Amino acid sequence: METITLAQGGGGVATNALVERVFLTHLREFFVSLGEDAGVFSPHSAMACSTDSFVITPVVFAGGDIGKLSVCGSSNDVAMMGAKPVYINFGFMLEEGLEIALLESIIQSIAKELRLTGLKILSADTKVLPKGSIDKLFINTTCLGEILLPNVSTQALSVGDSIIVSAPIGAHGASIFAARENIKLESSVQSDCAQLYPMLAPLFAKCPRIHTMRDATRGGLSAVLHEWVQDRELCIELDEGALPIDEGVQGICEILGLEPSHLANEGVCVLAVDKSDTQEVCDILRGHSLGSKACVIGEVYAASKQTKSRVVLINEWGGKRFMEYPQGELLPRIC
Amino acid sequence: METITLAQGGGGVATNALVERVFLTHLREFFVSLGEDAGVFSPHSAMACSTDSFVITPVVFAGGDIGKLSVCGSSNDVAMMGAKPVYINFGFMLEEGLEIALLESIIQSIAKELRLTGLKILSADTKVLPKGSIDKLFINTTCLGEILLPNVSTQALSVGDSIIVSAPIGAHGASIFAARENIKLESSVQSDCAQLYPMLAPLFAKCPRIHTMRDATRGGLSAVLHEWVQDRELCIELDEGALPIDEGVQGICEILGLEPSHLANEGVCVLAVDKSDTQEVCDILRGHSLGSKACVIGEVYAASKQTKSRVVLINEWGGKRFMEYPQGELLPRIC
Repeated sequence: METITLAQGGGGVATNALVERVFLTHLREFFVSLGEDAGVFSPHSAMACSTDSFVITPVVFAGGDIGKLSVCGSSNDVAMMGAKPVYINFGFMLEEGLEIALLESIIQSIAKELRLTGLKILSADTKVLPKGSIDKLFINTTCLGEILLPNVSTQALSVGDSIIVSAPIGAHGASIFAARENIKLESSVQSDCAQLYPMLAPLFAKCPRIHTMRDATRGGLSAVLHEWVQDRELCIELDEGALPIDEGVQGICEILGLEPSHLANEGVCVLAVDKSDTQEVCDILRGHSLGSKACVIGEVYAASKQTKSRVVLINEWGGKRFMEYPQGELLPRIC
Repeated sequence: METITLAQGGGGVATNALVERVFLTHLREFFVSLGEDAGVFSPHSAMACSTDSFVITPVVFAGGDIGKLSVCGSSNDVAMMGAKPVYINFGFMLEEGLEIALLESIIQSIAKELRLTGLKILSADTKVLPKGSIDKLFINTTCLGEILLPNVSTQALSVGDSIIVSAPIGAHGASIFAARENIKLESSVQSDCAQLYPMLAPLFAKCPRIHTMRDATRGGLSAVLHEWVQDRELCIELDEGALPIDEGVQGICEILGLEPSHLANEGVCVLAVDKSDTQEVCDILRGHSLGSKACVIGEVYAASKQTKSRVVLINEWGGKRFMEYPQGELLPRIC
């Protein structure tokens, strides 16, 4: 079994050989330039830029791996600003002893995901760490996108906005929980890990009044909605029965005592849109496979003293309770 | 002693409290925007972008710490493309149990370094990992710069170019080696860790014919020069006696059996310039404290069959030998 060696992190002959054989074999076509300290690009519009580090365990999971996740995570953060993801940068941190075959399969996942949206690589860096000083591999990505829909912002959230969720929630978190707890379910739950831009492109083109967008990663739907109303004179009311939760995810949550709305997602976004555009946004989202179950789950209201900065769940009998803001560490190394 | 907890990585209340208290206390003024998934900027020119992960141990060393290093490293990579560093992104990976006081001092180093060159933060991300799955903390930075001097490139290296080095070599590598080997020397060697842009700005403004620039980090001066001539019909001849090496660095190298030209630098750049501009470039570099010992060390020649892609050292008696390309891992976790 061939593995990563410390010499491959030294910046000399062995590093270049590793880069050539494992990385460039699969990624050469995506680089804007090679052999320089930095990638050069000529922007045509305002840009959005976002960085994220991926430290997930296990590194391969149902529905993806750390490579796919590292592209989707940053690509989605940029898309949430109304932007088309265009460029990406990679920082690889590898543990001495990592299997090269595993690394290669992760690099192949990355290549597949870059091809999907036409992303180009501006720069990349590889570090090798002595065995034990890191667990397998971490990947940092920084994505840059061209803004197509300006002014999408948390600050644009307004009274009367409809809250739309693009897909059933909690699948990424549930699948990682299940993998770690060795829960085997007949209805296999898969991570929702996916790039959202292909679903959102037609939405940006028709340019309806999208006020705010966020992908519901760490902290889940609950963290996103709470951050939106934090320190604002707003509250969000959710129709509890409308929250889309797949049966398998619900099952895992019941076994482990989890809240689906606290679970991480990696291919689900939450949108706040002007009420008059609600139907159009839902129709466009449903036109893409990732958004086929998109639905309205609630609305933004002016807050009372009691409901300021809160998210209120309304059950089918009209009963109200506050949604809980995730407090502790639900699951380390989820993304 | 207050330390980092897993809950601070959960994406909820505790994460926000950590970000607010430790990160934003020192870095708020540098953010282009807060509370969004990505930072937005409007570029005025072609841009250079470079990413780098910093995994150095010890995290605090003579002449700097991992925070300062993480800014200098990416900032310098961008400057090497003839660009002014303008924006930066941070990915922090923290080990559960990390002392908050240590983290805070590292964040303060970052703030100081950002202030020095007016860098703004586009985005940042914080992950917390369970104790043992990472050693203390890693930082990834991605820097973006506005290109002032286009066409600086490895490919522009030409026969007749003078090779200039901006400062004595090997101080960063030697200081980290010394720290790890517990070598105490009277003449304390300090890392050269520094942002190079302030030294280079007047050079870019006068726009002399700089063909190629590179900061000599991992792999040292030797790796840079070898990469420049790799697969080209060129060789570089160096005047061995002209290589600037401080006494303390020389001492450490003699004790440990190291080649100064293989040691990492974090504030030294190598320039290949049109011969007619040699004096002007040296004069401008010497006008800044970082470049006060800048000097010409060699020249680019058309290669013979024997010297193709090689770096040749010429000693004071005219004897020639090939410079060695760093082969193995000299020292893991040097940057």
